[in-house]
Amino acid sequence: MQTPWEYRYSQRTQRMKASAIRELLKVTEQPNMISFGGGFPAPDVFPVEEFKRACNYVLEHKGAEVLQYGGTDGYVPLREMITRHNNRVGIRVNINNILITSGSQQALDLLGKIFINRGDRILVESPTYLGALQAWNAYGAEYVTVPVDEYGMKTDALEEALRIGPKFIYVLPNFQNPTGTTLSLERRLKLIELADRYGVPIVEDDPYGQLRYEGEDLPAVEILDSKMRVQNGTYTGNVIYLSTFSKILAPGLRLAWVIAPEGVISKLSLAKQGTDLHTSTFNQIVAHEVGQHGFIDRHVEVIKATYRERRDAMLESLEENMPEGVHWTHPEGGLFLWLTLPEQFNSTEMLAEAIKENVAFVPGEFFHPDGSGKNTMRLNFSFCPPDKINEGISRLGKAFKRKLLTHY
Amino acid sequence: MQTPWEYRYSQRTQRMKASAIRELLKVTEQPNMISFGGGFPAPDVFPVEEFKRACNYVLEHKGAEVLQYGGTDGYVPLREMITRHNNRVGIRVNINNILITSGSQQALDLLGKIFINRGDRILVESPTYLGALQAWNAYGAEYVTVPVDEYGMKTDALEEALRIGPKFIYVLPNFQNPTGTTLSLERRLKLIELADRYGVPIVEDDPYGQLRYEGEDLPAVEILDSKMRVQNGTYTGNVIYLSTFSKILAPGLRLAWVIAPEGVISKLSLAKQGTDLHTSTFNQIVAHEVGQHGFIDRHVEVIKATYRERRDAMLESLEENMPEGVHWTHPEGGLFLWLTLPEQFNSTEMLAEAIKENVAFVPGEFFHPDGSGKNTMRLNFSFCPPDKINEGISRLGKAFKRKLLTHY
Repeated sequence: MQTPWEYRYSQRTQRMKASAIRELLKVTEQPNMISFGGGFPAPDVFPVEEFKRACNYVLEHKGAEVLQYGGTDGYVPLREMITRHNNRVGIRVNINNILITSGSQQALDLLGKIFINRGDRILVESPTYLGALQAWNAYGAEYVTVPVDEYGMKTDALEEALRIGPKFIYVLPNFQNPTGTTLSLERRLKLIELADRYGVPIVEDDPYGQLRYEGEDLPAVEILDSKMRVQNGTYTGNVIYLSTFSKILAPGLRLAWVIAPEGVISKLSLAKQGTDLHTSTFNQIVAHEVGQHGFIDRHVEVIKATYRERRDAMLESLEENMPEGVHWTHPEGGLFLWLTLPEQFNSTEMLAEAIKENVAFVPGEFFHPDGSGKNTMRLNFSFCPPDKINEGISRLGKAFKRKLLTHY
Repeated sequence: MQTPWEYRYSQRTQRMKASAIRELLKVTEQPNMISFGGGFPAPDVFPVEEFKRACNYVLEHKGAEVLQYGGTDGYVPLREMITRHNNRVGIRVNINNILITSGSQQALDLLGKIFINRGDRILVESPTYLGALQAWNAYGAEYVTVPVDEYGMKTDALEEALRIGPKFIYVLPNFQNPTGTTLSLERRLKLIELADRYGVPIVEDDPYGQLRYEGEDLPAVEILDSKMRVQNGTYTGNVIYLSTFSKILAPGLRLAWVIAPEGVISKLSLAKQGTDLHTSTFNQIVAHEVGQHGFIDRHVEVIKATYRERRDAMLESLEENMPEGVHWTHPEGGLFLWLTLPEQFNSTEMLAEAIKENVAFVPGEFFHPDGSGKNTMRLNFSFCPPDKINEGISRLGKAFKRKLLTHY
């Protein structure tokens, strides 16, 4: 039924589309469904007891503070904790370079708000994180894409894309969502060099950087960039860095942070003030209480052990169950791998087939701003325990084989 | 120092201004300052023990759920609780009419996102809530104003404003922020009738509706409107209604809700998904646990007793301490009263004088989209206990008298 409101939507409302992931999650709520669709952390590793202790402690000792309004920039001790962590890994920042956001999704929205005029082009990887596209579509962004291979963004295609004049470059260098691939050191340096030459800044989205299961950590693009740029002790980098507590503590808190030059933080903070005043004081103080004294570093080891096992289970199970012609990435960390079917197949059609077998994934085309990648899909390996992963991949194998047989 | 980012801000960034309240709060962090500036609830009435119990219970029994991602629309039992409350007071809604937001500020932002094209006019009271102006300025809103007197929005000036063709009407009918005045029943009906005649919908912002200290509750504009409009059991009203847990439980949770026709809720939800995915699962489940079994209704009585005493203390203290020519409203509920100086005085200049006496307020001009109201100010009476209120008003009286003497 039409209401008087329905004639009044803004132009940007026409550009908003329901996320495929969201619609998918509705189907996957069915019992017996094994879902590789969401980007959910394993509930098994949530530090529930630590949260209980922290809630009791902060309500006991800081009840009036944790339940009250707070500042827009975020809880100072939490920003100090993030500062210390960053200084330890080589990023020279102080708390004025840090803004707490209500999840990284909010950081993406605020970046859209302060930077994107309708029609502005944003340079993204293809495929890329679809939440970023969703956030920026609302501001009328257009996209310039650079393809991704097993070493991340193909920087040999970057210069041509930069000539188009994008507002900024959006990159997920570590265990990229959706492909699971990692930008090589050589390409990181090339990215920084080209961004600098063309005067185009970089947004580095790094939700999984701490979750590496093999190989060696690579320095963040921000670290490599800032090493060139620190002047008089002040960070003036060409990179805005995003990270989150969602994958190292719990996503239910909706807690993330942005690191950026002070001038940018103050604009983001101003935009945030009009958007939600501030992020929950309660969650910030609880997260600080849980996270301090090195707890996060220790807890990350538990998460890594759990996810490494699940990734290995999925990789082995794919070897066993996938028909010929199906390929997948070998992620060194993170939550996802990327699977490619023979070219003539459509993974959205394949999803219908898979759902009959009670298994789900996200079709790859949704991660491509240009709608390509129709024969690809994203599989999550963090949420299900290994036995479910084996069962799910076996069901997926069955669905694929049935469809492939019909085809030939 | 300029960074490469600073040349890249969007047009809307130019329109964002730091909130006066925010800057003010920085000054008021000084020790010995008595602040009537913020809109803070009394920390004395936060139900800390209830929160402790609830945190322990939900972490014990629903640990995997409370720390995990959740749906964008909000936690179903919390929406059901809100539905029951609304049905009880006469609003016929179901959970599909309800969206949980990260504070009402987010609801204002999302309304801007889905409705406002640059240059659209919004009809607001003058003065009005400055957070709404801040949210909508980012979308390029212009304002049409209707003055407020002791009975709320002057509906005899409404028709002329409606002829200008505003996108919607924004009204705070109960104990308005900033003036503390309440829209009379007669004017509510007039507002609904004129809005209907001109085909302009209404956004009703009602954060304090439950906090009445004298007189009788008036039905929400939404109730009056929806009584005319329920068709086949489906709500198709001309009103979007906003309310919040900030004033009846705790603002640190950042939890509020929108009631609207289903079609509008689904657009708001889509916009919210790109903005912050969802509001903290943890906070929603804890708030539901605290709020159920009638706790909120009982707790509201505690809050009302506390704030009534503070309001009375402020009103008495103003009688005692204010020089001639100073007037103020007599709010029947809420958190604020509104003070008017003789016309030749500027309350922003007066604030500098007051700060010397260690007392603060918010100058009234910031609540006027047209910059008028320079001789007015907002005083909050919920935050400080009665003895501090007496002391603060006495200091304010001193500052005013000194300034008034200098003037004559």
